[in-house]
Amino acid sequence: MTHRSPSPSPLGPIHHVGYVVADLDAAIARLAQLASATVTVREVMDEQGVEAAMCATDGGLIELITPLDPEGAIARFMEKRGEGFHHVAFAVPDAAAALDALAATGAELIDSAPRRGLGGHMVAFIHPRSALGVLTEVVQDDHHDGR
Amino acid sequence: MTHRSPSPSPLGPIHHVGYVVADLDAAIARLAQLASATVTVREVMDEQGVEAAMCATDGGLIELITPLDPEGAIARFMEKRGEGFHHVAFAVPDAAAALDALAATGAELIDSAPRRGLGGHMVAFIHPRSALGVLTEVVQDDHHDGR
Repeated sequence: MTHRSPSPSPLGPIHHVGYVVADLDAAIARLAQLASATVTVREVMDEQGVEAAMCATDGGLIELITPLDPEGAIARFMEKRGEGFHHVAFAVPDAAAALDALAATGAELIDSAPRRGLGGHMVAFIHPRSALGVLTEVVQDDHHDGR
Repeated sequence: MTHRSPSPSPLGPIHHVGYVVADLDAAIARLAQLASATVTVREVMDEQGVEAAMCATDGGLIELITPLDPEGAIARFMEKRGEGFHHVAFAVPDAAAALDALAATGAELIDSAPRRGLGGHMVAFIHPRSALGVLTEVVQDDHHDGR
């Protein structure tokens, strides 16, 4: 992707798509088989009660998330909806500025301020109600290139 | 995105993410506000009982789909799950070859052969059961660049 000027809207390029999975190792292996995916970062995230892996496919990123804490939000999500799609994340140069801009469009913020996400990126979520029914994440990523 | 050699796995780059929406015009306007999206193609697809619009954001594509036929699959989907995420599509150079390769990995095909999709691309879906719980589409797109 070539360099471009910052987007005038809150959300930049699609950064990754997040899937909730029951078995992280099995899901990584299946995604490797389907889409040549390789893990770029894998972390236990205690505050979220999950283990997550970012998987680079041949042109895109898929984040796989598995619940560790049976009382956590991801465990409850999986119990209710099963494995599958969880969120779409958009790259932004400044997550705090993006949250302000999103709030100005009437978006309902789940995180009132950015917090540390997978791989050390600052991230924040907005509610599906204000984003076409889709749980939507902003990821501060200076590379701003979808990786 | 630079040119690269074909992926050795069935699925290529992420082509687009599909959202089901109740009101296509309102959703297009909201996506323009959130992510500078502009419509590249919009079509009534009678066989699917839907109207769909491909929206180019600043680095990615989002397909918005609204039901027209109340008995159709998309209407039933929306009735069951509400508005929101529907599918992830991956670009492939040859949709028929991709289906063969997917079947060889044990994937369950919804479409046994590619059919015409939005914008005239040949497309086919595989069942969420065989793709990490996510409804997964292949899109034959010679540009192979996520657009």
